Amino acid sequence: MIDAENQTIYFKKKPHIIGNYAIVGPKEGKGSLNSYFDYIMKDDLFGEKTYEKAERKMVEQAIMGAIDNAKISPKDLKLLICGDLLNQIITSSFAARAFDVPYIGLFGACSTMAESLAIGASLVNAGYIDNVACTTASHFSTAERQFRYPLELGNQRPPTSQWTVTGAGCSILSSKGSGPVITCATFGKVTDFGIMDVNNMGSVMAPSAASTLISHFKDTNTTPDDYDLVVTGDLGKLGSEILLDLMEDHGYKLGTNYNDCGQIIFNGKQSVLMGGSGCGCSATVLNSYILKKVRTKEFKKVLFVATGALLSSTSTQQGDTIPGIAHAVVIESDDEVDRKNAKKESE
Amino acid sequence: MIDAENQTIYFKKKPHIIGNYAIVGPKEGKGSLNSYFDYIMKDDLFGEKTYEKAERKMVEQAIMGAIDNAKISPKDLKLLICGDLLNQIITSSFAARAFDVPYIGLFGACSTMAESLAIGASLVNAGYIDNVACTTASHFSTAERQFRYPLELGNQRPPTSQWTVTGAGCSILSSKGSGPVITCATFGKVTDFGIMDVNNMGSVMAPSAASTLISHFKDTNTTPDDYDLVVTGDLGKLGSEILLDLMEDHGYKLGTNYNDCGQIIFNGKQSVLMGGSGCGCSATVLNSYILKKVRTKEFKKVLFVATGALLSSTSTQQGDTIPGIAHAVVIESDDEVDRKNAKKESE
Repeated sequence: MIDAENQTIYFKKKPHIIGNYAIVGPKEGKGSLNSYFDYIMKDDLFGEKTYEKAERKMVEQAIMGAIDNAKISPKDLKLLICGDLLNQIITSSFAARAFDVPYIGLFGACSTMAESLAIGASLVNAGYIDNVACTTASHFSTAERQFRYPLELGNQRPPTSQWTVTGAGCSILSSKGSGPVITCATFGKVTDFGIMDVNNMGSVMAPSAASTLISHFKDTNTTPDDYDLVVTGDLGKLGSEILLDLMEDHGYKLGTNYNDCGQIIFNGKQSVLMGGSGCGCSATVLNSYILKKVRTKEFKKVLFVATGALLSSTSTQQGDTIPGIAHAVVIESDDEVDRKNAKKESE
Repeated sequence: MIDAENQTIYFKKKPHIIGNYAIVGPKEGKGSLNSYFDYIMKDDLFGEKTYEKAERKMVEQAIMGAIDNAKISPKDLKLLICGDLLNQIITSSFAARAFDVPYIGLFGACSTMAESLAIGASLVNAGYIDNVACTTASHFSTAERQFRYPLELGNQRPPTSQWTVTGAGCSILSSKGSGPVITCATFGKVTDFGIMDVNNMGSVMAPSAASTLISHFKDTNTTPDDYDLVVTGDLGKLGSEILLDLMEDHGYKLGTNYNDCGQIIFNGKQSVLMGGSGCGCSATVLNSYILKKVRTKEFKKVLFVATGALLSSTSTQQGDTIPGIAHAVVIESDDEVDRKNAKKESE
């Protein structure tokens, strides 16, 4: 049994997402969310000599795009919170070099989008700072050759594997302005169910998602039905099925309002086996499809749970299992928060 | 010229360091701070089969030791903020697995101790949470074989190189209780002065330290003389000399109250070339010598600036330079903060 609670912190001062941007690779651009992305790259190298340099350039473009979308100038940006999958998060650190702004480097694997938003919202809500960029990225070719096999090997992919999304997403947070509001965040615990297969990330991350979701529902006294969308980071098809089972074991039924970024991003005809993964998966789905639907009020309240597999070739080579983690944030439409505040005041 | 300001956030609600702990390897145990460390390992493997597993065990012991020192119980711990040098910060994530507590993973290379304290103090000061463990570690043998050469090669070390400290340090932060207080934090920007030599980390990090120090002094309207100790993370002998020059170019004279953790930790007779480095260097010096002197009021106000080289073998192999970063926190003795608050109220 997963026993979790008291992991949630609340933001009363309305940290807004005042701007956002998503850039993806050509394969992702052919997927279900084609019309939602801000930019679709023509090729995976994005004019660079290596995939690693392309990944970094995507982050730079995502940050600049989100700054534009927020209608602020680059000099108004006060903090950059960023992480990625590569050793020593070089994508983030080298992208940060291009901006004359303080930088917090994170590592949360594919949970990074939620981790950065949770920290960013904490800082903005406390009144320390405004105009904070929260961002992350992944690239199929950099992840594949770092965590698994050389690309040239042309290895066959086992049926449980997922496809690392090539893409970057960025949100700009500020207490001033308007836009979707982050109302609370649930920081996750590290879970480890003993999985050792680097091609089965869904099974690693499903228990982490369950742990964070259960804590979130207990802490906030809510159920899945209280959200227009409950969306996990990148569990993929198998991981999502395991999550549904785990949640049901603990008395929570995830219904038709549940979805997974790894299943949304590609269309059913694409050869991606269990679906999308990588930091860029939840980052691009959030910063395109989800935030647009929150802005149009189609989604008034979203529970966004990004999930990460804390995988490293060093630990795998030393016979270790793969731990997982999930962080969650609640994103609500601006007028939904105002409506609730007005209701509270009138009571 | 380094042009930096508006990077500092202030903590008015007294986030205290209620407990701290430092564990080091045998070589560090023979250094200048011998009598200050809480635990000196008899050998670098610490009873484990690999150096990586030893590093993780050091972090677990540092967290447990700090919990004991804070006189709280493990179940009172509410958040763990941790990072390290290894690929995908496996030291931190696997250590976090041993604690049933939410976890924020960071990567700031050797700036991690200040990065974790800055984030931890931000969360505690905002009233979100209490009992937050901020921790990091490094291990000579894991860093050397990951960033440079196999240990078995017995490579000769160039004169500009530093010695990665084997050790872990942990501080527990809470708004309740007593102990040294974190009064503000300055988040650093990524700097890059074009260094490509993986055996010259002092030169990479000195400009980062200068950038953060200059911003800090401008933001807080202070000078180096306002502190009993201004201490950088691990610039070593060469890096410290470069820093003194850079600061003088910008009109700041670092005097006899300036020191560097990389120069404090070993004694002059040990074969460490330019001095200590690694996340564990500033973490163990802070969580032993410095915090003990703040508790006894010998240091009433310390400016702690941990510096990191954002080095990765992948970026180096692709011909990239090495960026650096430095984050700073001000740590003051409890009664010094009370005295200043009383003075302000009487004015």
